[in-house]
Amino acid sequence: MPAEPRTRLEIVPLDGIPEIEPGDDLAARVCDALGARSDLLPLLEDDVLVVTQKVVSKAEGAIVDLTTITPRPEAIAFGAAHDRDARQVEVVLQQARRVVRMAHGVLITETPHGFVCANGGVDASNVGPRSGDVVLLLPDDPDRSAAGIRTAIRERFGADIAVIVSDSFGRPWRNGIVDVAIGVSGLEPIEDLRGTPDHDGRMMRVTVRAVADELASAAELALGKSTGKPAALIRRAEITRGEGSVGDLIMPAANDLFR
Amino acid sequence: MPAEPRTRLEIVPLDGIPEIEPGDDLAARVCDALGARSDLLPLLEDDVLVVTQKVVSKAEGAIVDLTTITPRPEAIAFGAAHDRDARQVEVVLQQARRVVRMAHGVLITETPHGFVCANGGVDASNVGPRSGDVVLLLPDDPDRSAAGIRTAIRERFGADIAVIVSDSFGRPWRNGIVDVAIGVSGLEPIEDLRGTPDHDGRMMRVTVRAVADELASAAELALGKSTGKPAALIRRAEITRGEGSVGDLIMPAANDLFR
Repeated sequence: MPAEPRTRLEIVPLDGIPEIEPGDDLAARVCDALGARSDLLPLLEDDVLVVTQKVVSKAEGAIVDLTTITPRPEAIAFGAAHDRDARQVEVVLQQARRVVRMAHGVLITETPHGFVCANGGVDASNVGPRSGDVVLLLPDDPDRSAAGIRTAIRERFGADIAVIVSDSFGRPWRNGIVDVAIGVSGLEPIEDLRGTPDHDGRMMRVTVRAVADELASAAELALGKSTGKPAALIRRAEITRGEGSVGDLIMPAANDLFR
Repeated sequence: MPAEPRTRLEIVPLDGIPEIEPGDDLAARVCDALGARSDLLPLLEDDVLVVTQKVVSKAEGAIVDLTTITPRPEAIAFGAAHDRDARQVEVVLQQARRVVRMAHGVLITETPHGFVCANGGVDASNVGPRSGDVVLLLPDDPDRSAAGIRTAIRERFGADIAVIVSDSFGRPWRNGIVDVAIGVSGLEPIEDLRGTPDHDGRMMRVTVRAVADELASAAELALGKSTGKPAALIRRAEITRGEGSVGDLIMPAANDLFR
């Protein structure tokens, strides 16, 4: 049987994006990295660029200097009980719309975006040389962050591709983190296949697939663990273009048995 | 900058696996499909084959004929209240080690394997022409299922690659299903990076990554929605070979704030 190169989904980590500092033009640096990869050009309509939250937050200056933080008594107690920096705990509580669980050293909150995640997405790793005294927050509006990168790519290359901002979240019941989408632009993050016949011709009743989360996880596999590469291009995934929002991925509280 | 083909992670759906019936030798059919792809041979040490649960369950005869099932009153009531087949609900309850939630039309159970998932992994879609009167159960021991396919590949091709059995699970707090690993052979499903320096040289404190789940999600992107292709080969993912078990992916009840 001949090779079928058209059916290969490819995930290409982008080299050459420099260390990003607050105020840097991340979208321009991503475009530079894409432009240097002649093997990826022209960009294709179903390409998806996945950019990790960390560089987005850094570029947007979503950084808190912990030396300016005075933890509340609850944060001091939780930090002391679980060997955690009380100032980090305070930042998580300040960012939280609601505390979902705060027990056994685990602090799970709902962010203003509606994400339910450990430490409200507040991130103390890989922040840079200032290390222990700085944490990263989630971007204010990760859909807007994704849209900004998408626009820059369209202006530079004349190609409108989808962009996802990804972050690493834990899950109940399963060990380990996986990358999920926290911001999207140019695709429908949920594929609603309800009522579509499956390959036996029967109706698939409840198949609503979180494609954007699967794309984020797939990109992580190529970006790997500690390489520091913050972006990957996914080619030939079966996506549905559209103007969806990451809000489509958030389960309404009314439907959620674990809120 | 020259192309860097070595850095491209590829996901290749396998064509030519016939419709699987109970008792069929799935591992042999997977080997046939691999053997027909000269472009993929020789197999490489870090290749990962992902096979979907549905064909594994069918080959192993993990099928229940609903006409033999007499639902208990609780199943009848739940089915009537939520427009569901009470016999399917009965099968889910029979398979459950514990009912985690049974409300608002959602039935979440813990399976004998330890998976917490909707309908205990009991699957009524794509089962074949008998449609409404048959459901698929999860394989008895999905690690063993994966190991059987791995052994067959090693015997046919002289290459020891990792194998994952995947299934689609929902998640609390987020809409939509994603594919995760329910059986593994030949890799460590969890990458424990605690204590490994990140690229700034700082210690990453709590980075335990569910690589096998990310691989399952990535494969789903290439297998797509209703094509019926049940297997994909992932090439050049950064995996750790080993003799891990899917049990490594299951959070111990003692650590789980949502059990």
